[in-house]
Amino acid sequence: MNTERLEWQIAFILEVDRLKSILRRSYLLNETRHENTAEHSWHLAVMALVLAEHASTEVNALKVLKMLLVHDIVEIDSGDTYIYDAAGNATKPERENAAARRIFGLLPPDQEAELTQLWQEFEARETPEAKFAAALDRLMPLLHNYHTQGRSWREHGISEDQVMRLNSHMYEGSQTLWEYAEALIHEATAKGYLREDNSN
Amino acid sequence: MNTERLEWQIAFILEVDRLKSILRRSYLLNETRHENTAEHSWHLAVMALVLAEHASTEVNALKVLKMLLVHDIVEIDSGDTYIYDAAGNATKPERENAAARRIFGLLPPDQEAELTQLWQEFEARETPEAKFAAALDRLMPLLHNYHTQGRSWREHGISEDQVMRLNSHMYEGSQTLWEYAEALIHEATAKGYLREDNSN
Repeated sequence: MNTERLEWQIAFILEVDRLKSILRRSYLLNETRHENTAEHSWHLAVMALVLAEHASTEVNALKVLKMLLVHDIVEIDSGDTYIYDAAGNATKPERENAAARRIFGLLPPDQEAELTQLWQEFEARETPEAKFAAALDRLMPLLHNYHTQGRSWREHGISEDQVMRLNSHMYEGSQTLWEYAEALIHEATAKGYLREDNSN
Repeated sequence: MNTERLEWQIAFILEVDRLKSILRRSYLLNETRHENTAEHSWHLAVMALVLAEHASTEVNALKVLKMLLVHDIVEIDSGDTYIYDAAGNATKPERENAAARRIFGLLPPDQEAELTQLWQEFEARETPEAKFAAALDRLMPLLHNYHTQGRSWREHGISEDQVMRLNSHMYEGSQTLWEYAEALIHEATAKGYLREDNSN
C-alpha cells in the first residue's frame, strides 16, 4: 500500500470536518438553530436519491450525489454567501477558487483533479447533472423557509420578486420541481412570509 | 405529474431534517460540540468517495453512497446507540425496525422498499458494499477520538480491548483501512487516550 497516498486522503477527510461549523442563513425545521453546511449537503444528497425521477433530462445518479457532497466544501475557507447578498456574490468566485485550490489540494493529484472538476461542473450549471443538483440546492431553502413561516426571509426582508428571480433556473434542472416551488413561493407571499413589493 | 407521489417524497425529506438534532457520542474535531448524525452521514459519504480504492473487494460506488446516506436515518426515532453500550445494543434491532417502518413508510411504496432494503443490507454486513460502508462507519469515530486526544473514549472509560473487539470487522471491508486503524488504536493506548486493561 502507498502509505503517503492514504495519509493525504485522511488529511483531507479530517480537514472537511470544519464544514460542520459553517453556518447557513436557513434554520432547522424545528427552529432551534441555524443549519450548517455539512448537514445541508447530506440533506441535499438524500433529496437527490428520492427526487431523481423528476430531473428534466435523465441524470447519472452517482455524479449528482458526488457533486452535491462536495459542492459546498469551499465554504470552509470562503464562508456561506447568502444568495440574496449581491456584494458578497460579486467576490464569491475569487474567494471560492482560492479555497478549492487549498482544500482539494490536500488530496492526491488525481483526486484533487476529480473533486475540483465536480465542483466546477456544479458551479457552471451546464450539464444535466449540474442543472438538477442546482435545482435541489434551490428547492431545499425554499422548503426550509416555507415550513418555518419564512423565518430567514423575514429576517432579511426578502421579497417574492427576489426569490422568483434567483430561483427560476430550477426550471432547467426539473420542470416538476420548479412548478412545485413556484406554487410554494406564491403561497408564502399570500401568507406574509415574503414581501410583495420588489423595492429591494 | 403524480402530485401525490411528490407530496409523499417531500414529506419524507422534511421528516429527515430531524436527523440534524440527533447527537452522537463523538465530538467535532474542534471539540466545540457533539457531532450530529446528519453531518456524520455526510462525512462518511465524502470518506467513501475518497477511500473507495481501499475496499477489499471492488464495490459499486453508488450503492455504497446510498447506503451511507440512509444508514442512520432510523436514529430519528431510536436515537444513537453507543457502540460500547451493551444494554442499548440488545434492544437496538427492535427499536430500529419500528423506526424504519415509520420513517421509510412516508415514501411511495417502491422507494420505501428500496431504502429499507439498503438499510437492511448495511445492517446485515454481508455484501462487499455493506462491509466497506461498515468499515468507514468504524474508522470515522476512531479518527475523531484519536484527534481529540480520545475525548469520548476517556469520558466513557473505554479500553483498547473493547475498541479492538468491536472494530476488527473493519478488516472484512478494507484490509488497508483496518491496518491503519490498528496502528492508530495502539498509538492511542500508548498516549493514554484508551485504557490498557480490559476489565470493562
